[in-house]
Amino acid sequence: MSKGTLYGVGVGPGAPDLITLRAARLIENATVVAYPTLAGGDSFARAIAADLIRPDAREIVMDVPMTVERAPAQAAYDTGADTIAAALLNGDDVVCLCEGDPFFYGSFMYLFARLNGDFNVEVVPGVTSITACAATAGMPLVARNERLTVLPGPLPEAELRARIEGAESVAIMKVGRHLPKLRAVIEDLGLLEQAVYVERATLAAEVVLPLAQAPEKAPYFSMILLTKGADPWL
Amino acid sequence: MSKGTLYGVGVGPGAPDLITLRAARLIENATVVAYPTLAGGDSFARAIAADLIRPDAREIVMDVPMTVERAPAQAAYDTGADTIAAALLNGDDVVCLCEGDPFFYGSFMYLFARLNGDFNVEVVPGVTSITACAATAGMPLVARNERLTVLPGPLPEAELRARIEGAESVAIMKVGRHLPKLRAVIEDLGLLEQAVYVERATLAAEVVLPLAQAPEKAPYFSMILLTKGADPWL
Repeated sequence: MSKGTLYGVGVGPGAPDLITLRAARLIENATVVAYPTLAGGDSFARAIAADLIRPDAREIVMDVPMTVERAPAQAAYDTGADTIAAALLNGDDVVCLCEGDPFFYGSFMYLFARLNGDFNVEVVPGVTSITACAATAGMPLVARNERLTVLPGPLPEAELRARIEGAESVAIMKVGRHLPKLRAVIEDLGLLEQAVYVERATLAAEVVLPLAQAPEKAPYFSMILLTKGADPWL
Repeated sequence: MSKGTLYGVGVGPGAPDLITLRAARLIENATVVAYPTLAGGDSFARAIAADLIRPDAREIVMDVPMTVERAPAQAAYDTGADTIAAALLNGDDVVCLCEGDPFFYGSFMYLFARLNGDFNVEVVPGVTSITACAATAGMPLVARNERLTVLPGPLPEAELRARIEGAESVAIMKVGRHLPKLRAVIEDLGLLEQAVYVERATLAAEVVLPLAQAPEKAPYFSMILLTKGADPWL
């Protein structure tokens, strides 16, 4: 029997109709879908694709514990990869659902590292939260010869300061509980008025605010965008 | 009569099935579509969406001259914006087709700067060439607390060197005729073996090669990716 193919499928930033045609077709035809959940919570990727998943599809859930040490999460991906490998050896294709894009801060990388080579793996790129947030906020990100710097919010304060100071456009991912630190750095650099806070972009509950007016508590799916604004494009 | 809405619609990196469901629906229903062409050439954005455009749709073509001075291009966008504004005032919606994502090195920014405020403008984010190239090359871009730097190839050599040296993952856009300069900088920094060259990602003619083996001449739609590779994800 020939082995199945593993598809790492980006389902985009949140709105179900921001899934690509290719991803939608793969999900609709999938007899086996896989996705991670975090510490027993719901899967955001599955929620985005829910209307496309066949009722009779088998679902492989990888529950990833939230711990500071990496070993427990690695063990969860080891187990998930084993389960997926068994399905592929059985000749089934497996469609792994990934928020945003599989290779852009996506947990699919962990499966890719474990299974690529032994199996045929195809990655379907998706719309990332960065351009989704820019669209929601009405903020052009970069044009012509401008640079874009993408930074994760958990980075240490000194590194954030150095990276933001030397940058042009900046997107800060994974804001969450790091919001007060990020706001302080951006204010210190005199950039507060250029900064926009975006939460749950493209979902019904989305929020767009000047960073100065951002809430005290930010969810994990939030972002800060810093750009020069639209004037240079005229 | 109520004014129409201007939609800036990302059509993704090249493969027609990497258009999102939302973009596909908007294009299929559009009675007026708009797109830029460069110096009388064909429109790549239109080619990507061709199968979705109604035969009876009106097409507004903005031909942008290739000149060093910016004024002639600005005049082309002024004229295009005027034509689009007239359609919107007439109550028609206008769907502007954009390669990749409208706010990520997209010419839609020029229309947005001219028409947003006077008209309702909605931006539909698309899959960018960056994650498309990463998918094609099988190269995870960034995970956890890693940084991504996006640089345009036309930047001066000294700036490229400084930006690449201090970076983690790097995506270099608009490689084209800047390939020899970029390869020299990356080789000087001792990073040649980590660098991958990708040309026309997701199209039938796509090319993926180690940068060391890249062709002498690169098309405009080519990219260099520099990452640490997949090992860290195990």
